[in-house]
Amino acid sequence: MTQQQLMRSIIMNCVRDDSDLPAAYRWLYKYHVPDSISQFAPYVTKYCTYRALPTPPAGVDFGTYNWIMTEHYWLINPFKNIASNMPRGLAFSEYWPSDFLEITNQPTDNDPRERRWRGSRDGYHPIVFCFLPLFWENDFKGSERTIEDGPNFRWLTVFKYPEGVSREEGDDWFINQLAPQLVELPQLNRFMSSAVLEDPATSPFVRVAELWFDNSRQWYKAIVENKEKFTKPPWAKWDQFPYLEPYKDFTGIFLLDRPESDHLTQYRGYITTR
Amino acid sequence: MTQQQLMRSIIMNCVRDDSDLPAAYRWLYKYHVPDSISQFAPYVTKYCTYRALPTPPAGVDFGTYNWIMTEHYWLINPFKNIASNMPRGLAFSEYWPSDFLEITNQPTDNDPRERRWRGSRDGYHPIVFCFLPLFWENDFKGSERTIEDGPNFRWLTVFKYPEGVSREEGDDWFINQLAPQLVELPQLNRFMSSAVLEDPATSPFVRVAELWFDNSRQWYKAIVENKEKFTKPPWAKWDQFPYLEPYKDFTGIFLLDRPESDHLTQYRGYITTR
Amino acid sequence: MTQQQLMRSIIMNCVRDDSDLPAAYRWLYKYHVPDSISQFAPYVTKYCTYRALPTPPAGVDFGTYNWIMTEHYWLINPFKNIASNMPRGLAFSEYWPSDFLEITNQPTDNDPRERRWRGSRDGYHPIVFCFLPLFWENDFKGSERTIEDGPNFRWLTVFKYPEGVSREEGDDWFINQLAPQLVELPQLNRFMSSAVLEDPATSPFVRVAELWFDNSRQWYKAIVENKEKFTKPPWAKWDQFPYLEPYKDFTGIFLLDRPESDHLTQYRGYITTR
Amino acid sequence: MTQQQLMRSIIMNCVRDDSDLPAAYRWLYKYHVPDSISQFAPYVTKYCTYRALPTPPAGVDFGTYNWIMTEHYWLINPFKNIASNMPRGLAFSEYWPSDFLEITNQPTDNDPRERRWRGSRDGYHPIVFCFLPLFWENDFKGSERTIEDGPNFRWLTVFKYPEGVSREEGDDWFINQLAPQLVELPQLNRFMSSAVLEDPATSPFVRVAELWFDNSRQWYKAIVENKEKFTKPPWAKWDQFPYLEPYKDFTGIFLLDRPESDHLTQYRGYITTR
Amino acid sequence: MTQQQLMRSIIMNCVRDDSDLPAAYRWLYKYHVPDSISQFAPYVTKYCTYRALPTPPAGVDFGTYNWIMTEHYWLINPFKNIASNMPRGLAFSEYWPSDFLEITNQPTDNDPRERRWRGSRDGYHPIVFCFLPLFWENDFKGSERTIEDGPNFRWLTVFKYPEGVSREEGDDWFINQLAPQLVELPQLNRFMSSAVLEDPATSPFVRVAELWFDNSRQWYKAIVENKEKFTKPPWAKWDQFPYLEPYKDFTGIFLLDRPESDHLTQYRGYITTR
Amino acid sequence: MTQQQLMRSIIMNCVRDDSDLPAAYRWLYKYHVPDSISQFAPYVTKYCTYRALPTPPAGVDFGTYNWIMTEHYWLINPFKNIASNMPRGLAFSEYWPSDFLEITNQPTDNDPRERRWRGSRDGYHPIVFCFLPLFWENDFKGSERTIEDGPNFRWLTVFKYPEGVSREEGDDWFINQLAPQLVELPQLNRFMSSAVLEDPATSPFVRVAELWFDNSRQWYKAIVENKEKFTKPPWAKWDQFPYLEPYKDFTGIFLLDRPESDHLTQYRGYITTR
Repeated sequence: MTQQQLMRSIIMNCVRDDSDLPAAYRWLYKYHVPDSISQFAPYVTKYCTYRALPTPPAGVDFGTYNWIMTEHYWLINPFKNIASNMPRGLAFSEYWPSDFLEITNQPTDNDPRERRWRGSRDGYHPIVFCFLPLFWENDFKGSERTIEDGPNFRWLTVFKYPEGVSREEGDDWFINQLAPQLVELPQLNRFMSSAVLEDPATSPFVRVAELWFDNSRQWYKAIVENKEKFTKPPWAKWDQFPYLEPYKDFTGIFLLDRPESDHLTQYRGYITTR
Repeated sequence: MTQQQLMRSIIMNCVRDDSDLPAAYRWLYKYHVPDSISQFAPYVTKYCTYRALPTPPAGVDFGTYNWIMTEHYWLINPFKNIASNMPRGLAFSEYWPSDFLEITNQPTDNDPRERRWRGSRDGYHPIVFCFLPLFWENDFKGSERTIEDGPNFRWLTVFKYPEGVSREEGDDWFINQLAPQLVELPQLNRFMSSAVLEDPATSPFVRVAELWFDNSRQWYKAIVENKEKFTKPPWAKWDQFPYLEPYKDFTGIFLLDRPESDHLTQYRGYITTR
Repeated sequence: MTQQQLMRSIIMNCVRDDSDLPAAYRWLYKYHVPDSISQFAPYVTKYCTYRALPTPPAGVDFGTYNWIMTEHYWLINPFKNIASNMPRGLAFSEYWPSDFLEITNQPTDNDPRERRWRGSRDGYHPIVFCFLPLFWENDFKGSERTIEDGPNFRWLTVFKYPEGVSREEGDDWFINQLAPQLVELPQLNRFMSSAVLEDPATSPFVRVAELWFDNSRQWYKAIVENKEKFTKPPWAKWDQFPYLEPYKDFTGIFLLDRPESDHLTQYRGYITTR
Repeated sequence: MTQQQLMRSIIMNCVRDDSDLPAAYRWLYKYHVPDSISQFAPYVTKYCTYRALPTPPAGVDFGTYNWIMTEHYWLINPFKNIASNMPRGLAFSEYWPSDFLEITNQPTDNDPRERRWRGSRDGYHPIVFCFLPLFWENDFKGSERTIEDGPNFRWLTVFKYPEGVSREEGDDWFINQLAPQLVELPQLNRFMSSAVLEDPATSPFVRVAELWFDNSRQWYKAIVENKEKFTKPPWAKWDQFPYLEPYKDFTGIFLLDRPESDHLTQYRGYITTR
Repeated sequence: MTQQQLMRSIIMNCVRDDSDLPAAYRWLYKYHVPDSISQFAPYVTKYCTYRALPTPPAGVDFGTYNWIMTEHYWLINPFKNIASNMPRGLAFSEYWPSDFLEITNQPTDNDPRERRWRGSRDGYHPIVFCFLPLFWENDFKGSERTIEDGPNFRWLTVFKYPEGVSREEGDDWFINQLAPQLVELPQLNRFMSSAVLEDPATSPFVRVAELWFDNSRQWYKAIVENKEKFTKPPWAKWDQFPYLEPYKDFTGIFLLDRPESDHLTQYRGYITTR
Repeated sequence: MTQQQLMRSIIMNCVRDDSDLPAAYRWLYKYHVPDSISQFAPYVTKYCTYRALPTPPAGVDFGTYNWIMTEHYWLINPFKNIASNMPRGLAFSEYWPSDFLEITNQPTDNDPRERRWRGSRDGYHPIVFCFLPLFWENDFKGSERTIEDGPNFRWLTVFKYPEGVSREEGDDWFINQLAPQLVELPQLNRFMSSAVLEDPATSPFVRVAELWFDNSRQWYKAIVENKEKFTKPPWAKWDQFPYLEPYKDFTGIFLLDRPESDHLTQYRGYITTR
């Protein structure tokens, strides 16, 4: 019997540089969205993409991804429920253009679905893919915020602790030391976090946190201008805040509160200008 | 792991008086429907509102609600699955206008999500919210009816038995004594009922029943004109049929067979006249 | 060549009494909306129905209609462009249930499309159907109002002057005497009007006006409580304000600012409860 | 200034044989519908395709097309309004697969938009494309039929008179001699016709007629079994009824009353099985 | 608690002959699709119909169905979760026209939901209804195929082994003997299969297989022209390939890769030509 | 009678800097899109926004706008058809947040609908709004391009000639001198242009041109690296190519071939993350 488990997942993608956006978006809207709807509409209840806001000054010090974040809600674990000797249990494979790995800044010896992690600041920025529980687990600040309260500049971060630091040890610093310091920032409007689910294991990352500000100027004031003030964990291998190596252990993306497209309800084919 | 359980819920709302309808509907369609879709689209499979038909003569003797009935189908229990120390596990709270409790005839010392029951005929008519199994449990009359058979004037009733009367004792009267008498009414086209689920416990009510007629004239003939003829239970504390105190133990609403709006498929923003 | 002319039309319908609503709505959503979309989607750009708000106290003194207002925007005059010897130039006729005229309080010796006017307070309340220019012609008060400014309780009125009073004579009273008095009402938020187009001539009415309030209490205070204060035209044949005989010369309906359904974008078939 | 003219057009396409349907449908839904929506959504108000019902026995004697009929409603003449030295005034050309002309049984030395007519029974069955007025001009039988009256098996015919026979001379036979004989057929439920518009001149055909039956058995009884009984025009060059050479002067298609897809409202991309 | 189980189901329907298509399609789109959406939208995540491609030459030797295949994805087993003494647990029954069984070539002494199997080549072709796991279980050939690779002519087959032959014995032949022979066919592009779920038991069939070709000519070349070459199982009671009696033990349908309509997202009422 | 005229319009907006994007997008999707649909859905047939691609290096030398381009297709001139003494002929005004002019880099002493032009490189970048004919007038290169031919990086430019240079004199240089030189660029895939309509006169600009490349690297190679090679007009007042002062006489924006949202078909309210 199919095992059911309601989960959210987030995926972050980069482009090599801005010049790749027309090719990347063409893949997304002309090929990938219909491939995806065809494949998982029966067991995905929401499928959205959010376009990254422009990387703010100092954004690369925080492992900022520059293209899109895709959000799914799944009724099942899509990696289970398939007979073990079967390719994928689906009638169709997804279409990948020949330059897909290059333009999305991924190891070109990968296949597009590979999960080995090889991210680094000056090297690859592979797809970050992780599964989350349906509800946020840690609600640090701003739980009364409504959509009427003003614009939301969301800083979505996905991170792991350096090799040799356990999830528990790392989370102890994040939840008990860093979070209370972040909560004090007057520019911070909203702050919540969850542990990444261990199964399905689609990435090495262990925690996701969202910090919301009015805009990127407020983010800069709160985070970059205060970066000396946050407590460094004893196990840190990276000297500067966030004390986790950008693009290797710490990644993030800047988003609006509204997706660019909620595909299951809004996609209507690749309809162009004339 | 998220606990999955497919359930239906119904919610009935009143307005203080007809003059509040513009404010109440503005809250519903401008604020609450998009708030709700944003919040639960990943785990609600149907979300509709039905506008109450005008209260027929003698309707207040049956605890009739005068505004809307909202119907959801849930994939999960939305009150579980949230870490116990968390406010609600969601990024956004819902927006409530400052006069929401007043215009919807609820205790103004409540918060909009409060579940304590303080309904009475001349006092508050708080939100009635209960969860039901996916399929009707008791099918007393008319199971062969199709949509081609004519108009349907639905009397949806939600009730509990007076303090001191157990669910079993009360149901014994309803199912074994009253229902067979109702089935005999020539004006009654359709009649089904279910017990309210005990978890989630969102209201004190224990049973829901729907009785369908051609229109309100037929309802009046069948129910009001015959009200002396239905057997009174020995435990009754209210003298008249339905032998349950209106707005306290017995509530109801008159509905069409079709919702005013099936929001997940039909909502397209607050689009107005020009 | 098809003659093009962008026009708005409004149609008001009554039901005989509230008990007829299930049959009337069934006709509307199960039969008439799909009939209509099939027929005119190629030349109607918007097709909405607004459900009447409950008739407020004293509403019958103002010829209040109690069911729906339908709004169309037409690219053509639907009564032209048809060879004169042709029935209607369409493949299908619309479906009318046998009791349609009765339940909508119309002369039963009519056919459903008849345009002869036989409205009276205690008799028939036939369909009011008139064509308007695309833009409002008279903007008496509140032109800066936005949708953010609060709820809108719209009083849509459609009227003609008594026999023997010309459009010009009547409008002179309405525009130059009455309108300035109405503008002074503190409860009135918005007020605009247009002359009814003379072609197509689908009703005897000559002018439409909308007056918006916060709610029906404000309407009552402004209109009913002040009704002695408005200047009576010398030609009046009806003693009381509005000085035009209700249901014969003066009709109206109370509406929200948002249609119950914008059919061309929201209709998805007759989908019911289960 | 753009010249506006509200017109309907119909297009009939064949496939060489049934085996070409997967390729033909793939072109239609994967490439052509989005190409078309992108191109003309701003000035086409309805765009539908109807899949041909299977050709009934003797259907080829009536020039029956075997794939699809496409119906558009246009706000403008799409062949005007373009500077004469311009290719087409559009940013994109439509995509045509290399085997498009072959699989749709058209002259392979054409370009896909060519309008020269080279149809014949055993040769090509090129695209039949003609423009019609918005409303039917001749309503011969059944104008009271509603959608509730039962299934409709539509025989849509498009024809011209042989070389040397004027439109007037031909129409005189069709309208005054043949039509009254067809009207007498008890199997015929509905019958209407229009002259093809002379501008835009997209085909040599001059008249369109629709004859509706319950189903193909009734069509066969009415038309094929009676074919000796219809009056032959003096100018006929084809011996048998319809006295116009099939696939050259007389073409047709058998359709349901409902399109397979109303693309502007129903197309949502090329979404497949999984 | 409602038992959840994500399953796919397929249903194949025949018409008696092509002349019944207008009546059959009218039932489907005017009555059955809205009945179905009303009933199961809360627990069906995809609901599509695929129109059968024309039966190719020799198709009847393979039990080919000639009308539609309906595909559902279910969140629950719709035959469980209902109190055992209840008719169906639903407010409405589905509407069946009086000639439904006749026009769909089913035993007229059945009720429309009966599951007893009485299919035979020259007799009835009752509804074939079976439940499948969410993912394909056997992926024999072509797992890398994408939607960009060309047209897909899908041969969907549903079969059981003759009385006295166990599922295991039959599958041993199908999977280990026949499938490897089919994989060798150069015309075969894609081939996958699953065992039919045993619960819910809606038909006697035990296995579903899909074989995809470019078009029906390739299917004919691969299957009909080679039919002598496939190994006959020792238990065969039917002499010719597929060695299972057509319409009794072996049924199938020829389909495009795209449904005619994905009802939950595309249905918008019975909208017709005009 | 309403004057009908099918026109396209384009509007380009800037933000002061990237930090204003959350506020600007919130205005667009939460307030302005529903305001706009409510207002003009009856006479606008397409309403899209395209998000600006990131400004490429040297982009500011070409007056590049950094936020959105909005495209409308109008059935009427929205500035006519309104009685001259009327504010706007509409029931509602649009909502403008108090900081709208600041965050969109416009003169703060304007009203949001003002049309006086005060653009300059280091000063304001006011809204560029112009009306175009429905079809492109000049098709300089690439008319055979289809959507299958690859990604499209669109450079949309809107310009006027310096004071004292007539439309004819300026166009003579653009069409006869510059365009042929641009056509020779191997990186240029597509090139078309139209004169801006003189009525309605919503901006001082006189010509629009689109030049399409594979991506911004190809644009840079073609345009920036060759900028010395294009012929300077004798009347030039700006030294460098494009020989028109950026943000004053020459503006542009870089776009995908697909809008971010086609609002009339895709907008479904302000639905957010949760």
